[in-house]
Amino acid sequence: MSEIMELARRAKAAAARLRSLPASCRADALNRMAGKLLEVREAVLSANQQDMADAAGLSAAFRKRLLVDDKVFEYMIRRLREAAALPDPVGHIIEERRMPSGLLVKRVAVPIGVIAMIYEARPNVTTDAAAVALKSGNAVILKGGSESLRTNLVLAEAMRSAAREAGLPEDAVQIIPTADRAAVSELLKQDPFIDLIIPRGGKSLIKAIAEGTRIPVLKHYDGICHLYIAADAPEEKAVQLVVNSKCQNVAVCNALETLLIDRALPDAVLQKIIAGLRENSIEIRGCSDLCSRVEGCIAATAEDWDTEYLGNILSIRMVAGIDEAMDHIAEHGSGHTDGIVTQSDELALKFIENVDSASVLVNASTRLSGGGDYGLGAVVGISTDRLHARGPVGPAELCTYKWVAIGDGHLRS
Amino acid sequence: MSEIMELARRAKAAAARLRSLPASCRADALNRMAGKLLEVREAVLSANQQDMADAAGLSAAFRKRLLVDDKVFEYMIRRLREAAALPDPVGHIIEERRMPSGLLVKRVAVPIGVIAMIYEARPNVTTDAAAVALKSGNAVILKGGSESLRTNLVLAEAMRSAAREAGLPEDAVQIIPTADRAAVSELLKQDPFIDLIIPRGGKSLIKAIAEGTRIPVLKHYDGICHLYIAADAPEEKAVQLVVNSKCQNVAVCNALETLLIDRALPDAVLQKIIAGLRENSIEIRGCSDLCSRVEGCIAATAEDWDTEYLGNILSIRMVAGIDEAMDHIAEHGSGHTDGIVTQSDELALKFIENVDSASVLVNASTRLSGGGDYGLGAVVGISTDRLHARGPVGPAELCTYKWVAIGDGHLRS
Repeated sequence: MSEIMELARRAKAAAARLRSLPASCRADALNRMAGKLLEVREAVLSANQQDMADAAGLSAAFRKRLLVDDKVFEYMIRRLREAAALPDPVGHIIEERRMPSGLLVKRVAVPIGVIAMIYEARPNVTTDAAAVALKSGNAVILKGGSESLRTNLVLAEAMRSAAREAGLPEDAVQIIPTADRAAVSELLKQDPFIDLIIPRGGKSLIKAIAEGTRIPVLKHYDGICHLYIAADAPEEKAVQLVVNSKCQNVAVCNALETLLIDRALPDAVLQKIIAGLRENSIEIRGCSDLCSRVEGCIAATAEDWDTEYLGNILSIRMVAGIDEAMDHIAEHGSGHTDGIVTQSDELALKFIENVDSASVLVNASTRLSGGGDYGLGAVVGISTDRLHARGPVGPAELCTYKWVAIGDGHLRS
Repeated sequence: MSEIMELARRAKAAAARLRSLPASCRADALNRMAGKLLEVREAVLSANQQDMADAAGLSAAFRKRLLVDDKVFEYMIRRLREAAALPDPVGHIIEERRMPSGLLVKRVAVPIGVIAMIYEARPNVTTDAAAVALKSGNAVILKGGSESLRTNLVLAEAMRSAAREAGLPEDAVQIIPTADRAAVSELLKQDPFIDLIIPRGGKSLIKAIAEGTRIPVLKHYDGICHLYIAADAPEEKAVQLVVNSKCQNVAVCNALETLLIDRALPDAVLQKIIAGLRENSIEIRGCSDLCSRVEGCIAATAEDWDTEYLGNILSIRMVAGIDEAMDHIAEHGSGHTDGIVTQSDELALKFIENVDSASVLVNASTRLSGGGDYGLGAVVGISTDRLHARGPVGPAELCTYKWVAIGDGHLRS
C-alpha cells in the first residue's frame, strides 16, 4: 500500500469516527487549534522564513501569498475561532414531514466524508480549509503548493495535536508530507477513500485534476464578471460600484472584468465612470462605440470579451439595452458573478430571472459575492460548478444529507 | 455538426427559454402532455406492439418492462398529471437573510439546465423522466433502450407537440431518434451543452458512462439493503417488516438483500421470521450460527454478503449487537437503504447517527425508501452518489440554486 493510499485510508477511518462526535467537540477542536497555533507561533514563522528564503527567486505576487507575517498569522487564528463560533451545519433538518401514512420523513445534513484540498502555496488556506472541512464533520487531506511545505507541516502538526486533545481522531487533518508531484497523481486514484476533491489555482490545473480522477471535483474556474449600467443608473452609485467592483482588488475572481453600459446612459455619467477608472490606473479597452466617445480608449479585440484579466485592465462595451447586455453575459460570462445597476425594479427582476450565474447582484459591488458578505462565514472558495454547490463554498456546502424515515411497522402495500 | 451535437445545442437553447417561463406554463404543458397522449393512445399501443414483436426472443422480465398495456398507459398519464399538480420547485427561496450591512441575500432554486437520461427499454420512464425534468424547468434529452424506440418516438412526438401548444420550446423534450450505439458516445461528448447525465441500468453501463464523459453523472448503483433486527424487536412487526422488505418486490433496488439478526433475539421470533420468508419461497443463505439454528439453511459464502440478488435469495447473519450490525453495514452495504427494527429509542438513535446511508429507516420496510413514500412525488431514480442528490431524485433534486444579492450601492470596504 502506498503512503498516500494509507493516508487516504486513515482519513476515511477518521471520517467514520467524526460522524458520531457532537458539534461541541468539533468547535472545541477548532478553538484548541487556534490556541495551539499561538503556542507554536515562532515555529510557524521560522518555517515560513525558510520557505520564503527558498522562494527568493519567485515573483513578488507569489511571495506575498506564501508569506506568513504577523497580520496573516493573526488572520489564521481569527478564522479558526470564527469557524468554531459559526452555527453547526451537521444534523440540520433541511426538511421534515409526516406522511399521511404516519411515516415521519426527514432530510438531515451530514458530512460529505473525506475531502481533499489541492491549492496554491498559501499557508492561510491550510488553516482555512481545515476549519471549514472540520466544522462540517469532514476529514480533510491538504496538499498545498510545495513551496509552502515547511510552513504547512508545522501548521498541520499543531492542528492534529489540538484535534487529539479535543478527542477527535488526529487523522481528521492530514497533510501530504512531500513535495513530490507523483503524490498528487496517487491522491487522485484514491476513489475508495476520498469523496470530494476541491482544487484551487489555475484553470489548466483544475481541468487536469478533474479529468484525471473518478472522484467528484468541485471546480473553481474563471470569474469573468460583468456589471450592466442601465440608462437610469444614478451617477454617484454607478461610479462607486464600477470603481469598487474593478479596483478594490483587481487580482481576485469576483473582480469586474467587463463593463456593459447602456447607450442611453447620459454622457456625463459615462465620462465620470471613465474618469473614476483612470484615477485608479485602469486601462480601458472599449468597443468602437465607446472609443468614439472616449478619448485615449484602446480598441477591444474579440478576445477581450472572453478574458479574465485579474489585473489593471477593463473591457467596456456599449449595449442597446438590457436584452443585449444579458445576451453578452450569456455568451461571454463564466457564470460566476454578474450585476446590474438600476433604479428600476422591473429591470432588476428581469436581470435576476434571466442571468444564469452563481451570483446575480443588484446595485452591489461584484466584490461582495462571497462567503463573508453573504453570511456564510468561512469558505474554501467560490464554485463555478452547477451541481451540489454553486458560488461560495462554506460549511453547509461541505455537507450532504441523508433521509431518515421513522415508522411503526410501516409496510409497502 | 453532428446530429447529436445539434440536438444538444437545441436543448441548451430551450433550457435558456424555459428559465424565464412561469411555473403555470410548465404545469400546463404537463397536463397537455397527458391529454395529447390520450389522443394518440392507439398509436402508442400499436408502436409498442411492434417493439414487443421484435423483442419476442427476449426474456419475460425484459418484455414485461417493455410492454405498454392499458395499466401501464394509465400509469403514465397519471404520473404526468401528478407531476403537474406537485408544488413547483423553481424559484423556491432556500434561505434568505438581511446582512448587518443591509445587503439582502437569497439562495434561490433554479433549473440545472439540460439533463440527459439514459435508461432501459422501459417506455414509462420516458414520460416519467420528461415530467420530472420539465417540472423543474430543465430541458431533457431522452435515450431509452433501443428495443423501445418506436414506442418512445410516438411518446416524445406527443409530448413535444403538447409543449409547443403550452408555449414552451418543443426542444424542452427531445429523444435520440436512433438505435445506433454511436449516438450515446456522441451524447457523452456534449459537455458544452449538457449539464447532467442520469444513467439507469446495470452497474457496468453506469460505470462506463461515468468514466467516458466530462459531464457530471448522477449515479444509481446497487442497493445492498440491510435490516437489523434488534434483540427487543416485537415479533409481529419484525416478521412483517422482513417479509415486506424482501418479498413485496424482489427485483428492485430497495428490496432487502441481507438480514442481520441479533443473537439475543428469542429463538421463537427467529423461527417465525424464517418461516415467513420460506412461505414466500425465499432461499436463505446463512452464517454458520444461523445454519446451526435453522434446518435446511444454505451456508453463505463470503461473496453473499456483497451481493445484490434482486431475486428470491436472502443472506442472513447473526450479530452480537448493534455495533457488529453497523460494522457489517459499513463494510458490505452500498449506502442505499438500511434499517433497524427495535423498540428502543436509544438504539434507533445510535443507528440513525452512525449508519451512513442515503436512507436510514426505523421500524419501516426498506421498500418505503423512495420518492412516493417520502412525499417527493415523481422521481427519476434513487441516487447512490453522495453529492448534489442522495437517495430519491425528484423535481427539487433536479434544481440547483443561485445567489441573489440586492443592495443599494453596497461596496466592499
